[in-house]
Amino acid sequence: MASRFLFLGLLIATCSISLASDSSPLQDICVAYPHDPGSWMKVLGIRLMEDLISSTPSEDVPVNGLACKDPRLVRANDFFFSGLDLPGDTSNPLGSKVTPVNVVQIPGLNTLGIYLVRIDYAPWGINPPHTHPRATELLTVIEGSIEVGFVTSNPENNLYTKILEEGDVFVFPEGLVHFQRNNGSSNAVAIAALRSQNPGVITIANAVFGSNPAIPDDLLAKSFQVDNKTIDLM
Amino acid sequence: MASRFLFLGLLIATCSISLASDSSPLQDICVAYPHDPGSWMKVLGIRLMEDLISSTPSEDVPVNGLACKDPRLVRANDFFFSGLDLPGDTSNPLGSKVTPVNVVQIPGLNTLGIYLVRIDYAPWGINPPHTHPRATELLTVIEGSIEVGFVTSNPENNLYTKILEEGDVFVFPEGLVHFQRNNGSSNAVAIAALRSQNPGVITIANAVFGSNPAIPDDLLAKSFQVDNKTIDLM
Amino acid sequence: MASRFLFLGLLIATCSISLASDSSPLQDICVAYPHDPGSWMKVLGIRLMEDLISSTPSEDVPVNGLACKDPRLVRANDFFFSGLDLPGDTSNPLGSKVTPVNVVQIPGLNTLGIYLVRIDYAPWGINPPHTHPRATELLTVIEGSIEVGFVTSNPENNLYTKILEEGDVFVFPEGLVHFQRNNGSSNAVAIAALRSQNPGVITIANAVFGSNPAIPDDLLAKSFQVDNKTIDLM
Amino acid sequence: MASRFLFLGLLIATCSISLASDSSPLQDICVAYPHDPGSWMKVLGIRLMEDLISSTPSEDVPVNGLACKDPRLVRANDFFFSGLDLPGDTSNPLGSKVTPVNVVQIPGLNTLGIYLVRIDYAPWGINPPHTHPRATELLTVIEGSIEVGFVTSNPENNLYTKILEEGDVFVFPEGLVHFQRNNGSSNAVAIAALRSQNPGVITIANAVFGSNPAIPDDLLAKSFQVDNKTIDLM
Amino acid sequence: MASRFLFLGLLIATCSISLASDSSPLQDICVAYPHDPGSWMKVLGIRLMEDLISSTPSEDVPVNGLACKDPRLVRANDFFFSGLDLPGDTSNPLGSKVTPVNVVQIPGLNTLGIYLVRIDYAPWGINPPHTHPRATELLTVIEGSIEVGFVTSNPENNLYTKILEEGDVFVFPEGLVHFQRNNGSSNAVAIAALRSQNPGVITIANAVFGSNPAIPDDLLAKSFQVDNKTIDLM
Amino acid sequence: MASRFLFLGLLIATCSISLASDSSPLQDICVAYPHDPGSWMKVLGIRLMEDLISSTPSEDVPVNGLACKDPRLVRANDFFFSGLDLPGDTSNPLGSKVTPVNVVQIPGLNTLGIYLVRIDYAPWGINPPHTHPRATELLTVIEGSIEVGFVTSNPENNLYTKILEEGDVFVFPEGLVHFQRNNGSSNAVAIAALRSQNPGVITIANAVFGSNPAIPDDLLAKSFQVDNKTIDLM
Repeated sequence: MASRFLFLGLLIATCSISLASDSSPLQDICVAYPHDPGSWMKVLGIRLMEDLISSTPSEDVPVNGLACKDPRLVRANDFFFSGLDLPGDTSNPLGSKVTPVNVVQIPGLNTLGIYLVRIDYAPWGINPPHTHPRATELLTVIEGSIEVGFVTSNPENNLYTKILEEGDVFVFPEGLVHFQRNNGSSNAVAIAALRSQNPGVITIANAVFGSNPAIPDDLLAKSFQVDNKTIDLM
Repeated sequence: MASRFLFLGLLIATCSISLASDSSPLQDICVAYPHDPGSWMKVLGIRLMEDLISSTPSEDVPVNGLACKDPRLVRANDFFFSGLDLPGDTSNPLGSKVTPVNVVQIPGLNTLGIYLVRIDYAPWGINPPHTHPRATELLTVIEGSIEVGFVTSNPENNLYTKILEEGDVFVFPEGLVHFQRNNGSSNAVAIAALRSQNPGVITIANAVFGSNPAIPDDLLAKSFQVDNKTIDLM
Repeated sequence: MASRFLFLGLLIATCSISLASDSSPLQDICVAYPHDPGSWMKVLGIRLMEDLISSTPSEDVPVNGLACKDPRLVRANDFFFSGLDLPGDTSNPLGSKVTPVNVVQIPGLNTLGIYLVRIDYAPWGINPPHTHPRATELLTVIEGSIEVGFVTSNPENNLYTKILEEGDVFVFPEGLVHFQRNNGSSNAVAIAALRSQNPGVITIANAVFGSNPAIPDDLLAKSFQVDNKTIDLM
Repeated sequence: MASRFLFLGLLIATCSISLASDSSPLQDICVAYPHDPGSWMKVLGIRLMEDLISSTPSEDVPVNGLACKDPRLVRANDFFFSGLDLPGDTSNPLGSKVTPVNVVQIPGLNTLGIYLVRIDYAPWGINPPHTHPRATELLTVIEGSIEVGFVTSNPENNLYTKILEEGDVFVFPEGLVHFQRNNGSSNAVAIAALRSQNPGVITIANAVFGSNPAIPDDLLAKSFQVDNKTIDLM
Repeated sequence: MASRFLFLGLLIATCSISLASDSSPLQDICVAYPHDPGSWMKVLGIRLMEDLISSTPSEDVPVNGLACKDPRLVRANDFFFSGLDLPGDTSNPLGSKVTPVNVVQIPGLNTLGIYLVRIDYAPWGINPPHTHPRATELLTVIEGSIEVGFVTSNPENNLYTKILEEGDVFVFPEGLVHFQRNNGSSNAVAIAALRSQNPGVITIANAVFGSNPAIPDDLLAKSFQVDNKTIDLM
Repeated sequence: MASRFLFLGLLIATCSISLASDSSPLQDICVAYPHDPGSWMKVLGIRLMEDLISSTPSEDVPVNGLACKDPRLVRANDFFFSGLDLPGDTSNPLGSKVTPVNVVQIPGLNTLGIYLVRIDYAPWGINPPHTHPRATELLTVIEGSIEVGFVTSNPENNLYTKILEEGDVFVFPEGLVHFQRNNGSSNAVAIAALRSQNPGVITIANAVFGSNPAIPDDLLAKSFQVDNKTIDLM
């Protein structure tokens, strides 16, 4: 019995495959398997060894990307998400909140190479400098006034910045550092499309000054031409 | 004098190049040359033979795709568009209007492989069955209630359909026939992102029954298993 | 015992992966697993619960795309197909028949991004207006006389049409609506190459007027600017 | 006057661009400019300095790939070729002849990533071992009997070989060494599709033993573990 | 005369095209035009208006990417570079120097999607945290001892770090923040390959704290959860 | 018991997937499963039937490409390799040795599309004419003097050749025949980067004259325009 579930574990583990490319799809649809192994196992009526399942939090099971659900089980809801009208909770130090709509929310997005987010900004809230390593982002202001900008790479490091009002659109090219800030004293809302199934987000503050473990202080001090104390503050 | 402008014509004609791929960009930015040759020629201070310029409507000049503006001339406005909050004019037989935001509105979108539209629907207005040959579309309802659907390819031709309310999102996979219809008696508005610099639109009614010149009636009659009179009606 | 085959079902289900890209291959060859699970299971000497196997028609088992056969089991026949000289059966309302040569007929075609068909046309038979969402098609007339054409996308919807004789070649660009019709009173035969492992076929008549379930009549009536009765005829 | 045509030369020279990718097209069509500069210059009514034109054989003018003809000048014939029913002249030492159908014969093939050839084989004629660096080839026997094969890469170097009859199909994966030989005493004919706008051909005999200039004899002798005299024979 | 050179300016300006993709090449070679317009203009024997040429520093002429030199002018030296054995000058605040080998040094690298650098590190010198938006980097230590690391994206921001000795190899995945530091008191040298014709470099310190113009201090202060004075120090 | 391991065999067999594309990655990292099934099975604590494991030499288990290790098990060593400073053993007829650094040595290279080799050359040793079907190669001389060259495809078959000294760099475009030879009487060493996770190597001598089984002598004799005896010598 135990080995059966070890096999199952092997099954899950071995067949965890990730999409290696955001190129065009090669079939009409490829609705992703649910990310929670419990759900599909239940679909097939398999009772599992509790500790195997309970100890693998669903978000940790490496089933993603290319695995396609049986087409006979596909439904309209696999292409649907409800809730982008709901405000995100911006009560955090940065004063912003990102609500994703990706393959987890819409399994039918699998292999289709596109991703949506709603971004809420509290008054003066910011979406701090970050990059999307694998996607361009196209942002539309739905409500409020948002200051945006991106910086080009070396050597120019030019900042292109605008203040956007409702109905304005701005593009952040792939891989470049960019940010947004609510330019007013009321809430602001934007919707952004990203050109990848899994664009990634690298928040500069976290990646450079908050990695696990931390990058050595003296290395950072030299990089930013400051002293270690300043790095500690950062 | 004449030959100089023939040279200019050669210049325009020869260097009209189209982007052949929606792959990742190979530089930070590549802001497109304005599509109106008049504007950049004026930038360079060249007075042109009026009839050459006036007879080539700006929209016909084949300068598109990969031609990059001099980086020293790039401005924040090259990445910016204002106006997606303005309703489109839906007073037409179908009762819908598409407002594009692409490389023409945002030259900085060049090579970045993404495209935005606002779609307005009059009460019961429709965006009729069509395909985007080269892109997946991800649509968000901003206002109203919209019935949407797409059909898979042969042999199943399954229709996946939903009625969407504000804040709902739906995906139309690349190349498949899809449509939307305003499901209510008030206006409806959606914003959609398409995963290509130039997705293309094929409206089935126009392409099949309204091509230039027309596809022979008897061929269509046989294709749809009806008589010629019905084809004439279509 | 039951759970073993549920595992097997899991195995099949989980590892059904689809190729997400028609990019260049990353190894010399990747011969597809047979599409019939029964055959490879027999190879491994596993007797299966009849109803599991019999109820999953081989064409429904989602094993496709990237799964490579053990290279030691690859044979020349994996790259070979015999039978493109055999006429297809055109005794149907449209008077045409497509004989495919793809990864099902030639498992070695897996990951190689190309596909072949033989098309037979009865006198006046047609291959009705359709698109291939994911591939360009290059057609050669082997026998007879065939009228062909394709229509470009909005707004021009230009029809480019020719009558082809033996030895003539015509190209249908990816994603555009196109058709062929036998232009004579004898049989006609063409061979066409498509630039994708799985180009897809969307027959307009079926997708628009014969989907499952049907697109609402009134929506179609408005799309084609006709009345519901005409739609019923279609 | 001279400088005008030097400008023209600059024009031709500078704007010679080559397609860098066989990815999906980004517009419906992009009909190539004629490869003979004389023809399009005449279209524009420019008289040229004879020696500039006459000394640049049309096949040498570097205008290829992405340059698109003005869409208003596109005709059905841009997508059409006539003549694949005509036998090629196989009266050469190898006894075979390749008739290409590519962007030169069909300008509309530009950016569409596919290529066709007709191969004629005299009795016992061969298409000697060669590779296509950038494309897979799918070959159909139209007439006769043809022995075919390809060899996999290191370390196995497995030869997969078959004798094909009329109606048989065989695939040669991208980049691998392959060959065909007429297996009978009558003529043989095949049609092959290649999955690239410009697949390239490397005939091993020519590239290794007939390069310009030649690879040093002693290097080849050591590579093939023979003496220089044998290399001289090759 | 003036307008002729304005034409030339148009010529240069219009035909500046950038490669939009690092996909496979579509021809054997495409040797880039020299980036200095003076050189190729001299090749064609054109005397230019001095101020036009002298006022456009060669590095500013936007001719890059896809423009191929006439194949008859290609030489072995177009594929060759000499000098990667020469130490770079590390006498700067960071104590490192990057010597590139790209399409500027080797014009034949055009369209081939790969790039090489030599990195010299003074004792304790650093290559500060940076990203390559468009390429993975594979680094080999030629001399000395180098501490390296990269950080994954949100939410984990895991740091993977090693100390490398001569002959050690480490990979920095595309788009992720990474760094190197000389781990010893003698010079260190590495050679790194990047998987793009134009990978780009974003030095975090410069892009975030040294952009042109600067990102507002208060926005950065909030992003890094420090006060403005600390940002000023950075 | 037997069927359990048959399941395991199914598991291994079914989930052997190969990466079909060298496009950009779609996640930060995807560390490959170890190529030795024994190791990961031991990780999961499964005792196996000895003959199943012992009879499948680890190098034969078809688990490669896209299978990602559980991110919680990823370590810095997955991105690290030590040993490129060690000379390879060149005591063989050709006098050269290639030491690879690929996904087998660095599992973290999976999906990152780049590959490194160290090549050692005994005095006058050669790396004989070969192609990499799927990658461009960029070579740097670390020690000694190396004669290099590549040949373009039909019809020109131009040889571009140079003698390289330490610090010199040369590029071999994808798919073209190329070679190196130690130009001196001391050892030589080069490091080369290849632009693919799995570039492949086709050694011409082996593929053409040493395939398994052999290409028929008379076919080769005709291809190279020599007699069978010469082919026997080759």
